[in-house]
Amino acid sequence: MKGVILSECDTRLVDVAHDLPRQNLTAAAFWLREVLPYFPQAVHLAVIDPGVGTNRRAAVVRAGDHLLVGPDNGVLLPTARAIIEAGDGSTATNAIDVFEWNYGDTPSSTFHGRDVFAPAAAAVHETGLDAFTDLAAVRPLPDPVEFELPTPSINEETKTAVGEVLVVDDFGNVITNISGTLLEELERVTVNGETVPVQPTYATVSQNSRLATVGSHENVELAVNTGRGDEAFRLEAGDRVELTW
Amino acid sequence: MKGVILSECDTRLVDVAHDLPRQNLTAAAFWLREVLPYFPQAVHLAVIDPGVGTNRRAAVVRAGDHLLVGPDNGVLLPTARAIIEAGDGSTATNAIDVFEWNYGDTPSSTFHGRDVFAPAAAAVHETGLDAFTDLAAVRPLPDPVEFELPTPSINEETKTAVGEVLVVDDFGNVITNISGTLLEELERVTVNGETVPVQPTYATVSQNSRLATVGSHENVELAVNTGRGDEAFRLEAGDRVELTW
Amino acid sequence: MKGVILSECDTRLVDVAHDLPRQNLTAAAFWLREVLPYFPQAVHLAVIDPGVGTNRRAAVVRAGDHLLVGPDNGVLLPTARAIIEAGDGSTATNAIDVFEWNYGDTPSSTFHGRDVFAPAAAAVHETGLDAFTDLAAVRPLPDPVEFELPTPSINEETKTAVGEVLVVDDFGNVITNISGTLLEELERVTVNGETVPVQPTYATVSQNSRLATVGSHENVELAVNTGRGDEAFRLEAGDRVELTW
Repeated sequence: MKGVILSECDTRLVDVAHDLPRQNLTAAAFWLREVLPYFPQAVHLAVIDPGVGTNRRAAVVRAGDHLLVGPDNGVLLPTARAIIEAGDGSTATNAIDVFEWNYGDTPSSTFHGRDVFAPAAAAVHETGLDAFTDLAAVRPLPDPVEFELPTPSINEETKTAVGEVLVVDDFGNVITNISGTLLEELERVTVNGETVPVQPTYATVSQNSRLATVGSHENVELAVNTGRGDEAFRLEAGDRVELTW
Repeated sequence: MKGVILSECDTRLVDVAHDLPRQNLTAAAFWLREVLPYFPQAVHLAVIDPGVGTNRRAAVVRAGDHLLVGPDNGVLLPTARAIIEAGDGSTATNAIDVFEWNYGDTPSSTFHGRDVFAPAAAAVHETGLDAFTDLAAVRPLPDPVEFELPTPSINEETKTAVGEVLVVDDFGNVITNISGTLLEELERVTVNGETVPVQPTYATVSQNSRLATVGSHENVELAVNTGRGDEAFRLEAGDRVELTW
Repeated sequence: MKGVILSECDTRLVDVAHDLPRQNLTAAAFWLREVLPYFPQAVHLAVIDPGVGTNRRAAVVRAGDHLLVGPDNGVLLPTARAIIEAGDGSTATNAIDVFEWNYGDTPSSTFHGRDVFAPAAAAVHETGLDAFTDLAAVRPLPDPVEFELPTPSINEETKTAVGEVLVVDDFGNVITNISGTLLEELERVTVNGETVPVQPTYATVSQNSRLATVGSHENVELAVNTGRGDEAFRLEAGDRVELTW
């Protein structure tokens, strides 16, 4: 993919991640949403594509002054919304427009990253944020595939939140889909039946002790100081998380 | 290696892979051959070097307008041939010439990537595609170590192909050395005694089902839709693969 | 972190490592010390930060014409000393000065790489090697947290060295903290009771045989030719290593 891009345009490549879990739309949607809005104006290429080679469409999403290129499976839409939220709110830069990239025949049916999406990213980079819509391969995509990260259910009366693990990060921290605002003013919280302290960060408990905290993504995170939260809480991506307080 | 290169020339570095299997000439020869021909003119540095510190030679391979730098163990030659095949066929760019890089004493005998090959890559990058042959360290290498990827045996009469697994990719897809043309017009194929459907891509079978397909490398690939082919077929790199049809 | 940096300055990013063992100050101090001195003048950003979100300070270390940015936990100081040692010895470039980066409130208490250190690295890169000390966030840090890599004890009379494993590299090579000068003129050495040959490099023993050698870091390294030394010697990071000769 890098070779194809550099053959077609002279640009600076920045690797954002090498190790997103394979084929996992939820993990990719989460991590890209957390990371890409911090970048300056760019073309972002992300190919999480279990449907490669089938009749799924290719998409170019314009979010403010960013372009996102990938399969039309919705995985880029949470990022597009986050880019708009992180922007300055001006009308010039707060629209999300989705386009189809019409790719025709391809050399392979199993590696569209190389054969479809890298050339598309190079082409929209070369033509630019406005003019790319004039490319012959580009047309509006009125009905893009939607995708939402799963949302928790909160019951203030029973003081219970039921959510799930979105991802486990490299450190073993368990990142849930439950908003960290829930932990405000709590000293402890019960996670799937086990009570742990609510802490501002990892090292405010002793080594190898468990905690709940608000992660940098503003969600509830379950962790162990200098250890692995996933092992201590016996949780992995997709698992149910019930918090009570 | 990056520090050494950037200390000696001002260039753009592009990471091609971080995770080639260690010490594995076959895997490196395969992946580099699949990837590097897609790049524009460049100096490619690849150090797969189980013989580091012994009397094996250092090589600079010129293939068309690309330069390949690494140990003289032949691992770069399949890539050189693929670069020529991918080129425009003009006589100006279809020659492969191999040179020795004469490196003398080195600070270490266990890290020639840092001490020999990074400086060599920087030097040939700085002097360029033609002038590098005037460098004092460079001389023709008339007898480079050869290396060929293993080839399968095909018996059209008994309708049997016996090959091997070249590599297993990150997704668990089993990439064989058997040409994908074999699968043309077949609806199913028997792999080491078990029959699986021949499919255009992964997602044309149901989730977690097995298939044989023609990968982006144009070889037969054994896979599982959203699962791991290596586990389902119980195959790893180097294993024998017998296809019958 | 890359997005934050590129939003605040136009620079070239070079990834030095993706896979340093998490939370491991010794491994980071060792690898950074071995790698960063080979780079030309640069701002180096390295966040090994088990104390994130606590009252530990942020540091900018000036070593010659390099700047090192990270938590004030000492992990950058061996690198700073190695940069000075690798330099030309001129008085203009042989000083180490440590500064505090005063960061105030932060958006998160668990990801200061994004919220503190990336902005600090971008700011000192923009202002430069001398002027960065005029930044409002910068002041001298007279009492930085110290950190030394563990040192072995050598007894020439009993011909015994007791050290430890600093790290195991990607190939499985066991890198100790014992100076390789110890192996000079030895033909064999006893490692935790088992005698192995002293060799100039890996491939001077037969495949899958054990050896001791002087690694590119100039320390004693315990290895297996085309195999994993850590498994053969049953050693991992932090383990005790007793050499007798």
